Amino acid sequence: MVAAAEQSDVVLVGDPELWQRAAVLRGVDPASLNLIEADPAADPRYAHLPELAAVATAVRGCQSGRFSALVTGPIHKASLQAAGFKYSGHTPYLADLCGLAPDDAVMFFAGGRLQVVLVTVHLPLADVPGSLSTSGIVRATRAAADLLRDRLGIEAPRVAVCGLNPHAGEGGLLGAEDAAVIAPAVAELRQLGYDAQGPFPADTLFPRAARGAWDLVVAMYHDQGLIPVKTLDFGRSVNITAGLPIVRTSVDHGTARDIAWTGQADPEHAVAALQMARRLVATSRGGRTPEAPLR
Amino acid sequence: MVAAAEQSDVVLVGDPELWQRAAVLRGVDPASLNLIEADPAADPRYAHLPELAAVATAVRGCQSGRFSALVTGPIHKASLQAAGFKYSGHTPYLADLCGLAPDDAVMFFAGGRLQVVLVTVHLPLADVPGSLSTSGIVRATRAAADLLRDRLGIEAPRVAVCGLNPHAGEGGLLGAEDAAVIAPAVAELRQLGYDAQGPFPADTLFPRAARGAWDLVVAMYHDQGLIPVKTLDFGRSVNITAGLPIVRTSVDHGTARDIAWTGQADPEHAVAALQMARRLVATSRGGRTPEAPLR
Repeated sequence: MVAAAEQSDVVLVGDPELWQRAAVLRGVDPASLNLIEADPAADPRYAHLPELAAVATAVRGCQSGRFSALVTGPIHKASLQAAGFKYSGHTPYLADLCGLAPDDAVMFFAGGRLQVVLVTVHLPLADVPGSLSTSGIVRATRAAADLLRDRLGIEAPRVAVCGLNPHAGEGGLLGAEDAAVIAPAVAELRQLGYDAQGPFPADTLFPRAARGAWDLVVAMYHDQGLIPVKTLDFGRSVNITAGLPIVRTSVDHGTARDIAWTGQADPEHAVAALQMARRLVATSRGGRTPEAPLR
Repeated sequence: MVAAAEQSDVVLVGDPELWQRAAVLRGVDPASLNLIEADPAADPRYAHLPELAAVATAVRGCQSGRFSALVTGPIHKASLQAAGFKYSGHTPYLADLCGLAPDDAVMFFAGGRLQVVLVTVHLPLADVPGSLSTSGIVRATRAAADLLRDRLGIEAPRVAVCGLNPHAGEGGLLGAEDAAVIAPAVAELRQLGYDAQGPFPADTLFPRAARGAWDLVVAMYHDQGLIPVKTLDFGRSVNITAGLPIVRTSVDHGTARDIAWTGQADPEHAVAALQMARRLVATSRGGRTPEAPLR
């Protein structure tokens, strides 16, 4: 768990012995680390789960102004859930810690050639069509488009919305949701002033987005958005939580327990997540990033 | 409609006036075209639909040895279906013309960085989970792997099978089909002697496949396979029908009626489809391609 502090230095939250062991493994002087222990009172529900106590401690620090951003590694969902964790992952848990509804926090990916937001995330594919709602599509799109505007320097993001079905339903021949649920969301977004278009067939939308036709793609489900993000941008793309009052980024890989503590893990994702957090903070500070905007 | 003849020259099947008009539009001498008219008797059911009469004429020519391969452009499914066409597209119709069951012909894509076969194609997303079967996954994989071996010079294709659900179901937390339907197909393929692995999470499988980890990816549904194919390989990837006794390739775009006859259509896809047909024929002739194998 890493949190970027005011002075752009990094504060590591959690068990000091683990952090020091990791530093030694990577050839870093353990005395150089800026460490704080997790505070079990940060979320009393999960005081018994060190990973979650560290996350909650960092979130409280972001809320109080002690930290500017939260950067997380992966968590092992199945084992945390077996120990009582009731969320499907970091993202809805962070919404809860910030006093929001779980759906208010959305998974958004940026840092590579594509910027993509997911309307649904960790659901069986069979549950996706029934879980889509016009309001959910509008909420996810607004959260990501507002983040692009407020923290990544894109004044009026051009938004493309994916269809759910092949060929975006092909006029109803291949499914009803594109016309019944997604098209009304695009209309509502336009009424709200967003430059949104679609629904478009996803298989031809992504190559156009990768060539710069849009600033944001709205994907209806996990693999629809993450297959193109990881195929084009693996290692560079960063998981950003949109819709939160705090800045949070994360690696976009899993726990890889099979190579934990072997020194083989590639820190590329974690470095990208830290750099993106700094960038989001720098932009939101002055209202305008010192770097060039994303496009 | 284009069919590659024995001498590697191209025979254009269908209304001569249309072909000549297209030639003039592209600056080609219409007298240089090798034209034959469609034979309405080739498929008496659809003698009234010129596009289908042309397809059926070309298929009969491939069956009789007059032609070596069939190369098709797109058809407008909705208008053909309104006129009585009872198939969801070219691929099942070609299976029928060849005396096979519709599912025996499968959509396979090659020519770019990825080789991908689709287990299901033109279905609403909500119908995909219930339409998957172990036998269907095995059939599609075998058709594509055998084509790679017999016509593209890959002796023992390394096959990766996608999961259906996010994280390939994450041990059942995110859906049952990966373990219940897909894993048994992988086991059956291995028993049959295929070098198959999976099911793997699709979002991390495709970037690995694009870097050469496998020769064939088996996708469960339209967008799962075609999003990465078109994002990486748009214009180069060719739709090949696996499982047929004839060689058939097609462009991987739609009818684009809005730019028809304007001269704006890019022939890149059609050229790629024709080149792939020549390659498939050259390889299957001698049992070995004169070009380098695909990898």
